[in-house]
Amino acid sequence: MRECKLVILGTGTARPTPRRGCSAAWLQFGGDAVLFDCGEGTQLKVLEAGLRTSKLQAICVTHFHGDHVNGLPGFIGTMGLNGHRSPVRLVGPRGLRKWLAVLRELSILRPAFRLDIAEENDGLVAQWDDFSIEACPLDHRVPTGGYLFREHDLPGRFDVERARALGVPAGPDFGRLQRGESVTLPSGQVVAPEQVLGPTRRGRRIAWITDTRPSDRVIEFVRGADLLVHEATYLHALVDSAYERGHTTVQQAAEIAAAAEVKQLVLTHISPKHTRNRELLDEARPIFEAVRVAEDGAEFSVEVPA
Amino acid sequence: MRECKLVILGTGTARPTPRRGCSAAWLQFGGDAVLFDCGEGTQLKVLEAGLRTSKLQAICVTHFHGDHVNGLPGFIGTMGLNGHRSPVRLVGPRGLRKWLAVLRELSILRPAFRLDIAEENDGLVAQWDDFSIEACPLDHRVPTGGYLFREHDLPGRFDVERARALGVPAGPDFGRLQRGESVTLPSGQVVAPEQVLGPTRRGRRIAWITDTRPSDRVIEFVRGADLLVHEATYLHALVDSAYERGHTTVQQAAEIAAAAEVKQLVLTHISPKHTRNRELLDEARPIFEAVRVAEDGAEFSVEVPA
Repeated sequence: MRECKLVILGTGTARPTPRRGCSAAWLQFGGDAVLFDCGEGTQLKVLEAGLRTSKLQAICVTHFHGDHVNGLPGFIGTMGLNGHRSPVRLVGPRGLRKWLAVLRELSILRPAFRLDIAEENDGLVAQWDDFSIEACPLDHRVPTGGYLFREHDLPGRFDVERARALGVPAGPDFGRLQRGESVTLPSGQVVAPEQVLGPTRRGRRIAWITDTRPSDRVIEFVRGADLLVHEATYLHALVDSAYERGHTTVQQAAEIAAAAEVKQLVLTHISPKHTRNRELLDEARPIFEAVRVAEDGAEFSVEVPA
Repeated sequence: MRECKLVILGTGTARPTPRRGCSAAWLQFGGDAVLFDCGEGTQLKVLEAGLRTSKLQAICVTHFHGDHVNGLPGFIGTMGLNGHRSPVRLVGPRGLRKWLAVLRELSILRPAFRLDIAEENDGLVAQWDDFSIEACPLDHRVPTGGYLFREHDLPGRFDVERARALGVPAGPDFGRLQRGESVTLPSGQVVAPEQVLGPTRRGRRIAWITDTRPSDRVIEFVRGADLLVHEATYLHALVDSAYERGHTTVQQAAEIAAAAEVKQLVLTHISPKHTRNRELLDEARPIFEAVRVAEDGAEFSVEVPA
């Protein structure tokens, strides 16, 4: 079973501070990786966290505010200097191509590998053999998309004893059944995969939702996720500022997690006004118990449900 | 007398490392400041060094390679968030306006203050009451300019005893003479400033020269400078790589300092191949004794010559 974890590299807001850098999160899924957002300083945080970009499959940026994208040119440049040559999917708002074209023209960034660009923030935006990335429009001051990593559903557990009891010989037929194919025994009897496989196990799901006002659409998008990382810029005392600036409060993020019945909530994009995590947790926990506050470099592992 | 110091914020090459960040240097001249280059991470280095951007007068970028400019959008954005509203002179290669226009269009950066842009790398590029910035084309792989901070020459010291002996009454006439004006005494006698002022004192000069191959033009540009910060990417054993990539070796930087008869040489833009400063100093000192190797955050003060 692939290891699946999210390393939140930057948990701050518009201005990086020594404690909270600009937004970025690294999803490690076995050997593969996906980067969500790439604020200034992300490349150094990746280096310091000991993460390896050689199998980075995609970079998904939420929106064109500097604290979410200013690290991207340097990140891509350094990957090239480190010898990366395989294509990387780059997902983000309309204008990505234009930005990269100017960076290339001025020689600020000449990518050493192909960027497979998708200017989309709705629906399926990237897909591989065993996972995919979906996007959902958010409600911020500029076009913004949240992202959902979805591991593909896993086949049910193979019941070896049951297969043997049905007369299936150990060998290639076991593999066929595990892949969901029926097999015909020498006796002519047909064994269907449902007879020897447990229920399909749902793949893991991790959501990266920032920046946004509270959104009903997000609740449906992240429903049942194993891990919801949601922005929570301010405590609810500042709900008016939050709304005006296109952000969510801690209380609202907890309400979304509860309504969406996610398994874990992690708060990120924390204003430097709020220095004590205890205050954030005190506001969130009465509404949603399984909540944590991200710190730069914090790792969150997600296991396959039993 | 104004304090004058250079804080070298980033001393590394193309890829930032925890030890050596991307290129940037902060010149503090009394209350005023000038930033040379703005690699990724500069805004955080400025914050950590306790420097204040409120009287930043100019940002001068040498060339459009990411490690010299990728921090600029975030730097300008954060200055605005911090309330900066007065104009800042922005000097750099042709294309600055185009880059900023795209950043603005995409809303990655909407500067909160006026940027007074000069796409120039030769001659006088910025001027204030008591200092100016000159540029000199360098020899790199893309259009590049080195910079020279010049404090305006200072009037000679005012000889109060001599003025009194000549019959000048203490008061406004002292000020006129100090500003270089003649005064006429009640007796009708004219006292010229040369009679009461010592020799003009040359203003301080600090040069920021990176990235470049060794250049005779630089020698003339920085001649006699109080402080020459020169790139020295590699030890001379790697002179062929240095030339090919448009860089200078430690030995060559020392030769330039000696030929230009500068007072101090500081080596910067040090390849991560070279981790021991001792090796760099051993190569430079036989050629130019007053040499140091910059580390991120190192400060170099320049006093007015006696």
